[in-house]
Amino acid sequence: MTQTIAQQMKEIALAAKAASVPLANLASAAKDALLLRMAEALQAASAELMAQNAKDLAAAREKGLSEAMIDRLVLDEARIDAMARGLREVAALPDPVGEISEMKRRPSGISVGRMRIPLGVIGIVFESRPNVTADAAALCLKSGNAVILRGGSEAFHSNMAIAAVLGRELDRSGLPKAAVQVVDTTDREAVLELLKLEEEIDLIIPRGGESLIRFVSEHSRIPVIKHYKGVCHCFIDKSARYEMAENICLNAKVQRPGVCNAMETLLVHRSVAAEFLPLLAAALQGRGVELRGCPETLVLVPSATPATEADWDAEYLDLILAVKVVADLDEAIGHIRRHSSLHTEVIVTEDYSHAQRFLREINSSVVMVNASSRFSDGGQFGLGAEIGISTTKLHSFGPMGVEDLTTRKFIVLGEGQVRA
Amino acid sequence: MTQTIAQQMKEIALAAKAASVPLANLASAAKDALLLRMAEALQAASAELMAQNAKDLAAAREKGLSEAMIDRLVLDEARIDAMARGLREVAALPDPVGEISEMKRRPSGISVGRMRIPLGVIGIVFESRPNVTADAAALCLKSGNAVILRGGSEAFHSNMAIAAVLGRELDRSGLPKAAVQVVDTTDREAVLELLKLEEEIDLIIPRGGESLIRFVSEHSRIPVIKHYKGVCHCFIDKSARYEMAENICLNAKVQRPGVCNAMETLLVHRSVAAEFLPLLAAALQGRGVELRGCPETLVLVPSATPATEADWDAEYLDLILAVKVVADLDEAIGHIRRHSSLHTEVIVTEDYSHAQRFLREINSSVVMVNASSRFSDGGQFGLGAEIGISTTKLHSFGPMGVEDLTTRKFIVLGEGQVRA
Repeated sequence: MTQTIAQQMKEIALAAKAASVPLANLASAAKDALLLRMAEALQAASAELMAQNAKDLAAAREKGLSEAMIDRLVLDEARIDAMARGLREVAALPDPVGEISEMKRRPSGISVGRMRIPLGVIGIVFESRPNVTADAAALCLKSGNAVILRGGSEAFHSNMAIAAVLGRELDRSGLPKAAVQVVDTTDREAVLELLKLEEEIDLIIPRGGESLIRFVSEHSRIPVIKHYKGVCHCFIDKSARYEMAENICLNAKVQRPGVCNAMETLLVHRSVAAEFLPLLAAALQGRGVELRGCPETLVLVPSATPATEADWDAEYLDLILAVKVVADLDEAIGHIRRHSSLHTEVIVTEDYSHAQRFLREINSSVVMVNASSRFSDGGQFGLGAEIGISTTKLHSFGPMGVEDLTTRKFIVLGEGQVRA
Repeated sequence: MTQTIAQQMKEIALAAKAASVPLANLASAAKDALLLRMAEALQAASAELMAQNAKDLAAAREKGLSEAMIDRLVLDEARIDAMARGLREVAALPDPVGEISEMKRRPSGISVGRMRIPLGVIGIVFESRPNVTADAAALCLKSGNAVILRGGSEAFHSNMAIAAVLGRELDRSGLPKAAVQVVDTTDREAVLELLKLEEEIDLIIPRGGESLIRFVSEHSRIPVIKHYKGVCHCFIDKSARYEMAENICLNAKVQRPGVCNAMETLLVHRSVAAEFLPLLAAALQGRGVELRGCPETLVLVPSATPATEADWDAEYLDLILAVKVVADLDEAIGHIRRHSSLHTEVIVTEDYSHAQRFLREINSSVVMVNASSRFSDGGQFGLGAEIGISTTKLHSFGPMGVEDLTTRKFIVLGEGQVRA
């Protein structure tokens, strides 16, 4: 049995590697036409997709999954339209492949530059939302990569149905169907086998909860790009304008609390805490935010509950906020360094030197001055659609777009030069 | 015992992480001055270094190491001068840290760009040559990183002595000595413990033989940048000029056969094989090269010995060359794809379309037209000193310089913007 799954995964990976060769050299126009046809085909197949999705929904209800989980699984006309729109947006992005840069003549007479190329084969391990199948496939195809998708068992029929539609369009375009493959088993052993195939798979991107990401990261021999969680900090400096600080904090905490770029810890400079914190606390509490404060915060905001050590590392993904009064910028930077998840940190300040120090000294993947952490997103940053976010520093750091699914090789143009 | 080594490695890693903070923001002038003082200090300490080196040499002779191995261990005045020169060259390189690029205004009004930052803590696991201690430390310091060095047991005293000299200069500059640490145990367990510390160490670079690299790669939870071997190909196309082809092949094979960018397999287009291959074979054999040929090669060059399947994947690092006659460019590209180590591949051609196809379709880390594979080197490419070479595609691909020891974070400058 284990043997069979290992062989099956090896076959999938070898097929993906073979498919990656024609993909790597496909002209941009052909890739974009393919993505547009895929978008059409998904919409045309909506009845088929919803019928398969109904099987997943029935199984989910039988298993007693929460309504929130079931909602994430649903494919209806609106969500299928959104998937198709996603493919069209990816088609409209610039093609990163083939770009030549930094071409320079060297003292030996050779010209040396760099050409952007696809990574080859990308493995995506994800949970529940079936739209990831179409979104991730589009980003991988656009960047000239073959993709192996391993979705959650609860979306199995939906994922297979989406892959079937995409596969038909690959076939019609004369491209190997193995360019986009969904692993057709829900056995967890399959993931473990995939993670061993370092000769065939170039990159693994896990998308889902922290336990999935830790599982993938601990078992993979293939490079993994990941982020565990987003504990985003916002520091209100002594010189901050109160109105700006309040707007940014409300937006960062309340606009969409369940996402990784929402604020989880607020730091307030002691000089302004007595005046500003009660105002801000009232505004946040007025929006239903529960405050968990340090002892100084509790004095200024008696309605807050005491924070424990665990609160400084918590990703609530909810209307809860940890609040700490700090003596100065140094204490703020120190606190962020100790508790940061390397996602996004914000300073609100009018002080030029403090803005500069915060930008230089905080090495999280995104560092902001006077803007809401909610902007920390590939789309907002102009990368186009987002394949994920990396809070590890290798290869990519921060939100990742199609360019992050490529690498650069060196190219050398000579006229017969040899090394002395 | 294991517990003790685990604790010891954790302490080293935590000290390195703490030291990486002041290093990350050190001004270029301070880093360069430090490197120049280190160069002075190494030369001034040559007697001390040679005394410690003598202990390693004595142990090596006692263990019966080969003369070649012993030669690699030796530290004499000339080699200490060369180390000092290396440090001065690194000091003269441009500082990659702090560079801001791609700053753009987004529709929301925020400005988004990227700032180059150090990776943090680099772990280098290497064998025999003690000069790696100084070279790698210099490249890591220049790029603002703390470094943990784990050399081979045979160079233990030499490595510790070099680290002591560098540490004194760190101390004199008011910087933490933990910025450059040599692991002071030769227990292999120490490497295994280091490779687990993903919270403290950002990147592992193994330097040495294939077995060391595989060991590190299989046990590391930290990203590893590596190359196993260099099986460099040279394809002589139908339209190649014979004289250029001969010069390139001789240089690529003979000039320094023991290095990873030497040619290991020669592919010759069938149309020119009968005329060109005997000439080239005679020239190569005249320099002492043993040829191992495919059946067609054996007909044209009867003095060659038959190649086995293993020859097409062999990294000889010696005056041996595998030779194969191919039908056309497609067969050459196919052979290279199957047998490439993703290091360096060369085409010799006068055909524009073939040059273009070779450049686009071969995705090794370095692809060359009409130049010797021996140019595949960070120095020759203008990267300055080389920290290593990567034949895996993530983060860096090909020769790596100081810039490859950095990453880029996003920086956002706003005026109070919030997300709609």
